[in-house]
Parts: sequence; structure tokens; C-alpha cells
Amino acid sequence: MYRLYEFASSGNCYKLRLAMSLLGLSCERIEIDILRGASRTESFLRINPNGRIPVLELGDGRRLPESNAALWYLARGSYLEPSDPFEQAQVLQWMFFEQYSHEPFIATSRYWIAILGAEETYRAQLEEKRPKGYAALDVMEQHLAQRDFFVGNRVSAADIALYAYTHVAHEGGFDLGPYAGIQSWFRRIESLNGYIAITD
Amino acid sequence: MYRLYEFASSGNCYKLRLAMSLLGLSCERIEIDILRGASRTESFLRINPNGRIPVLELGDGRRLPESNAALWYLARGSYLEPSDPFEQAQVLQWMFFEQYSHEPFIATSRYWIAILGAEETYRAQLEEKRPKGYAALDVMEQHLAQRDFFVGNRVSAADIALYAYTHVAHEGGFDLGPYAGIQSWFRRIESLNGYIAITD
Repeated sequence: MYRLYEFASSGNCYKLRLAMSLLGLSCERIEIDILRGASRTESFLRINPNGRIPVLELGDGRRLPESNAALWYLARGSYLEPSDPFEQAQVLQWMFFEQYSHEPFIATSRYWIAILGAEETYRAQLEEKRPKGYAALDVMEQHLAQRDFFVGNRVSAADIALYAYTHVAHEGGFDLGPYAGIQSWFRRIESLNGYIAITD
Repeated sequence: MYRLYEFASSGNCYKLRLAMSLLGLSCERIEIDILRGASRTESFLRINPNGRIPVLELGDGRRLPESNAALWYLARGSYLEPSDPFEQAQVLQWMFFEQYSHEPFIATSRYWIAILGAEETYRAQLEEKRPKGYAALDVMEQHLAQRDFFVGNRVSAADIALYAYTHVAHEGGFDLGPYAGIQSWFRRIESLNGYIAITD
């Protein structure tokens, strides 16, 4: 039985809930209210000294921070991990792309607009992030033009990592209308056995 | 024989050169002058549609963007990869920490100051990044207080990923003086057989 320290509306936390649901794994969910500073308390900093959610706790008490490292661990040996080492590296390639070129722009915009409800306060920063978020979506759309999934033409942890914030990018003010390839890919993820929504 | 598309003074590229040197692997180095936009040309975008260096090219022409994904691939099966799956996930945990909580603050500050020589132009952004960079260094220092290396008390790819920009953090205006644990860890990395400097 896993335990997940999470803030439920965070896409980074949803990655792990979605992967566990697809893989038939169950977890106890512990909500950490980051809006009230609960990830920066002394007691939470003992769980993750970097003060971030999610943290995945194994049955024996060992803990993994960093959503994509925990996702990689859950996916290991399942149908979400390719068997070929180069394809395994490509899964990580897209996970690092997600954390460096995608999440800081798309997730942060959504956080300011949809979670904090503070679009006006962050107007200047949102404008700075907008083109960088669209650049990430463009890279994804181009990659999906001739592929059904990100790596090896089969669903993998790379798709889960990227789906989490991309499918709610509109909540961050991004217009997904022109991204037909991305939208078809959404449908393929959403038809997987065990799929759950971010609000579930 | 590997081929490395790189900008030599980038810490992200140095990660791969250092790992290859430690592992006795050789590579052909192709300099991509990012200061002149060489990572955004049509021909380079065919190599990496995300327009970033480094890209590691294998002998058969397959290519891996994202420094830590390529580092993971090089480390696989070597002494830089732990054999335990949980420790493998911890290596990734620190690599994601590096790309999300460390590189955007420490590497970017160094880029503006030491590579572009534009400290004055970026003064406001540098001040914003300073506390976030120190927060990453604090997390590292705390972790190293009772450990010689980041994962499993043996050197791994996590150390290489974190060493690359940390050991030149002073070039980004960070004072490493108070970080005794980090400085001792530098010496342990620098004494490894096959170690090369970022300027090599």
C-alpha cells in the first residue's frame, strides 16, 4: 500500500494517482494544503527537505519526492515502461522536457489563474510565460503528428507525465484548439483501462 | 563512438563529457554556438526540435536530447548506476531536483554573469533567482551533512548531474564559502579516476 502526500489539484500529484489507477495499485492520500504553507512546515520538511509535493511513500516507509522519479518507480516493470533501454531513456527525455520546458510555464500559469484566482496580479508574469508554454505545446504537437504516443508508439510513463498538465492547459489560459494531434492523444489516454480524471 | 552536440561551457554538456571520461568512453564534440543562435537554426532543429543542447548521438545515429536522460543512458550498467531499483529512482529524484530547483537559478545566473557578461542588464532577475539558488544549495548541504555522496553513499550519476553547475556556482555570484559539506563533496568527485574539468 502506497501513501501519497499530495495537493489534489496539482498535475504533478495527479501523475502518480493516474499511474497507480492504470496499474491497479491503491494508495492512501494525505492532502498537504500548499496554499496554507503546509509543505513548508517543520513536520513536512522532515518528509521532503525540498518542501514540495508530491512525495510517494512505500509500504516500508521509504519516500520518493519528485513526481517524475516516483512515476518512473511506479512504472518500472509495467506496461508503462518500455523494455528497450534506449526507449527507457526517451521516456526520461520527455519527463525532463516536461519539468524544464513545459511545467514551469503551463502549470505555473494554471496555478496563478485557476488555483489562486489571481490572473490580474500575475498579468505580467503570465505574458512572459505564454510564448514559452506554446513553444512546449508546439514541440509536442510536432512529435505527435506521426505518432500515437511519445515513445515507441505505445503508451508509457512519458505520456502520463505530459498528459497531467497538458490536458488542463486551458485552465492556464492556453488555447488548445489548434492542437489537433494533442487532442487526439488526449482521447487515447482517456480510453485506457483504469483512467481517472484529475478531479477524481 | 558517441557524438556530442554541445556548447562547451554549459554545465549540462559538461555532465556528459565528465561521465564519458569517468567511464572511459570517447566522443566527437560538435560545438553549437548558442550565443549566435546555432541551436535554433533549421538544421539544428532537425537534430533536436526543442532547440537545446546537449544532444547525445549514438554510433547508429539515434539521438538523445536532455542532459540528464543522456547521462542516465551513459551511466546504465556502470558504477554510476546503483543496482537497487529504489536507489535508481533516488538518482532520478536528484536529477529532477537539479533541473527544476537548481539549474534554473544557479545555471541561469552563471549564464548571465559569466557567459554573457551582462550582470547589469539582468540585475533584477538575478536578485529574484539568488534566494532560490541558495535554497537548492541548502537542501544539498543538509543532505551531504551525513553522507559522502547523494545516493547510497557511493558515487552515482546523481552526483555528476549536481556537480556540473554547483562547482561553478561562484561564477553565478553564489558564495560557496559556508557550504563545507558541498566543498568536501567537490573534492571527492575531483579525485575520481578519469575526472576532467569543465574547461577541458
